[in-house]
Amino acid sequence: MNVPRLATALTGPLLDLERKFLAAQCEIEAWFRSQWLEHAPPFYGSVDLRNSGFKLAPVDMNLFPGGFNNLNPDFTPLCVQAVQSALEKICPDARRLLLIPENHTRNQYYLQNVASLARILKLAGLNVRLGTLNAEITAPTTLELPNGGTLTVEPLQRNGRRVGLPGFDPCVVLLNNDLSAGIPDILRDIDQNLLPPLHAGWFVRRKTHHFREYDGVAAEFGQLLGIDPWYINPYFGQVSQLDFQTREGEERLAAEVERILGLTAAKYRELGITDAPYAIVKADAGTYGMGVMSVKSPADVIGLNRKQRNKMAVVKEGLEVSDVIVQEGVPTFETLEEAVAEPVVYMMDRFVVGGFYRVHTERGADENLNAPGAYFKPLAFDTPLSTPDCDGSPDCAPNRFYAYGVVARLALLAASREIENTESVLESISMAA
Amino acid sequence: MNVPRLATALTGPLLDLERKFLAAQCEIEAWFRSQWLEHAPPFYGSVDLRNSGFKLAPVDMNLFPGGFNNLNPDFTPLCVQAVQSALEKICPDARRLLLIPENHTRNQYYLQNVASLARILKLAGLNVRLGTLNAEITAPTTLELPNGGTLTVEPLQRNGRRVGLPGFDPCVVLLNNDLSAGIPDILRDIDQNLLPPLHAGWFVRRKTHHFREYDGVAAEFGQLLGIDPWYINPYFGQVSQLDFQTREGEERLAAEVERILGLTAAKYRELGITDAPYAIVKADAGTYGMGVMSVKSPADVIGLNRKQRNKMAVVKEGLEVSDVIVQEGVPTFETLEEAVAEPVVYMMDRFVVGGFYRVHTERGADENLNAPGAYFKPLAFDTPLSTPDCDGSPDCAPNRFYAYGVVARLALLAASREIENTESVLESISMAA
Repeated sequence: MNVPRLATALTGPLLDLERKFLAAQCEIEAWFRSQWLEHAPPFYGSVDLRNSGFKLAPVDMNLFPGGFNNLNPDFTPLCVQAVQSALEKICPDARRLLLIPENHTRNQYYLQNVASLARILKLAGLNVRLGTLNAEITAPTTLELPNGGTLTVEPLQRNGRRVGLPGFDPCVVLLNNDLSAGIPDILRDIDQNLLPPLHAGWFVRRKTHHFREYDGVAAEFGQLLGIDPWYINPYFGQVSQLDFQTREGEERLAAEVERILGLTAAKYRELGITDAPYAIVKADAGTYGMGVMSVKSPADVIGLNRKQRNKMAVVKEGLEVSDVIVQEGVPTFETLEEAVAEPVVYMMDRFVVGGFYRVHTERGADENLNAPGAYFKPLAFDTPLSTPDCDGSPDCAPNRFYAYGVVARLALLAASREIENTESVLESISMAA
Repeated sequence: MNVPRLATALTGPLLDLERKFLAAQCEIEAWFRSQWLEHAPPFYGSVDLRNSGFKLAPVDMNLFPGGFNNLNPDFTPLCVQAVQSALEKICPDARRLLLIPENHTRNQYYLQNVASLARILKLAGLNVRLGTLNAEITAPTTLELPNGGTLTVEPLQRNGRRVGLPGFDPCVVLLNNDLSAGIPDILRDIDQNLLPPLHAGWFVRRKTHHFREYDGVAAEFGQLLGIDPWYINPYFGQVSQLDFQTREGEERLAAEVERILGLTAAKYRELGITDAPYAIVKADAGTYGMGVMSVKSPADVIGLNRKQRNKMAVVKEGLEVSDVIVQEGVPTFETLEEAVAEPVVYMMDRFVVGGFYRVHTERGADENLNAPGAYFKPLAFDTPLSTPDCDGSPDCAPNRFYAYGVVARLALLAASREIENTESVLESISMAA
């Protein structure tokens, strides 16, 4: 596969921040190694990054990554090696893995992701089959892929304290389904290794849980490097018990937007940054780029019209939005073919295994790029993120990518701590039910 | 870098053996994972393989690999990831690594290997410096490399129970020096992690120790796959207390050659193989392709002429050969540009990270290809060894390479057990000294 070089996205001079990362590489890697001994990394994850030229920060962390098909296939061996590492810790004896995909069987982009992920797992020496939670699939169903391949999904079965398929008792169950609609009974209290755990699903998970953990990680990392953690960490706050349709909580939302914009403006003044601050309002449990708006003033969230309200009120699986995160907007200064580009970094176990640019031709530098559907053009990184070129010029692509890999791993570490600390949330939900 | 495809070496149909490996991939990978939990893999290693079309076997295992410069640079991220994995187990906190190269400072090929290895270690986030055991180097010395780069080697210093360089106290000491000349006092009883351990050096190590362990590994693996282990394991025997100059032990050597040729001939008859058996006589503690001869009859080792005796009597560092291994010769059916080719597989920690073909234009299919100097032309594999293409045609290059990776890892596992079981040898040498 011929992967275009990403010259356009990477022509700017290397940030001060990126130089600091390169200079401290030995400290950074040793620190990550010790962190991973204390905090088990999630099986996999992807991070949306924003690079504003003055700030490089994660804006979203996905624990059910859906774009493995967008990675440079040259890096497949990195994925395979990472899976081998993960399996060694989780279940060295594993021979069979059951992959549970999302329910939508008609999204060709998503199916290609599942095929790519299944291929990686097979290459790691696992017998892989797909079990679906989709109640409409009552018999093994073969789905055609655009590349001529096929995927067979089968209805998931419960057998005592195990799940499986006919003639297939898996050692490991891997979720590529983010459980937005809730935790299916069939997956509760199973004896098998379930990755990631149920409480990592969006039914339990909150973006604000994640970014609270990220605050801690960024502070520790800032201290390690002697930098203001703001350079890698956007301000955020939470607003609960909103009802977009009845406009309940609107004033509280406006007040939080004002607070975040104010904090950002103060920091911009302190550092002589002339950009106009903006904020992103997102469903706290949302995904797929639904329920997201970009605002430049508190007034922007007052008196939303019907279309805006509808957009914010409901996310995937028809889930109603009552809690939101208000996050400092980090503009992107990366462009590709005159379109706005946002790096997405993929990780398996504790390793960065690839990534791509989400390129959006119809959106501005201060907007959310993860729009529904296939509005974005994926553009695979052509350099792995683990190989900074210490001897090369500091602003060459491998060095920029190293910085992306560092910030992405900071978000992964925050996710590790988040999963550790939210297990009790699931318990309290289960008790209440 | 444009790496040529290895069509010539890989045009034959896939062996039965290779098909069996692919069919049993899940079992094989799970078995390796459990083995690595019981046996710590060496930090690194390279294996010379022979593929005869009917047999695929390791013929030598090097614990101080000297050809990192010959690997496909596209696989560097695999090496980096493997080093990160190794460090996590050995010394997660490591920031500084001292690399001890061989003493010869004029071998440009070897220096390029050291530069490539040092680059990999740096990319893994280590501060790397080179400390030499060479008594002629009394001050930091910068060596020029053919590619325009440089390497600085410094005299190793002992400080109490640690070794280091001025202003450099390493956490890990990595040997790329095979200690043929003996164990230097400066490295004895140090508190730092020394990799591989002293008794992995050729002063203590014996090829026959390795292949005795490999016998066990091959038997277990043969049982796992339901195959005769002979398909992956050459016969061998040891002859001790030889003196090539005085011809002492010549008859015992001839008898062992006869035994090995007889066993091979019987197996060939059993399987209908029409090749003429041959055997390789090698110094039991030798390396660098010195002290090696290929024989087709017991008479070949009787009455050697002066040149032949001199060749066999002394190996690297002037070490006298008194013990030899007599190993079943495995012909190679792989050719490249009409020359004989032998695959060399590189591993770091428990991962296959690359390899190359040793191609020799002046030698036959039944000769040793690891000749002194640079007689061979390295040809990097263009496919990683960890990604068999289960859906592709079975004899495509990735599948052939998967089989190489499996057999190479069997040798690596034998080396792990060998290192575990020969620690006492070093103790007995130390006690005697």
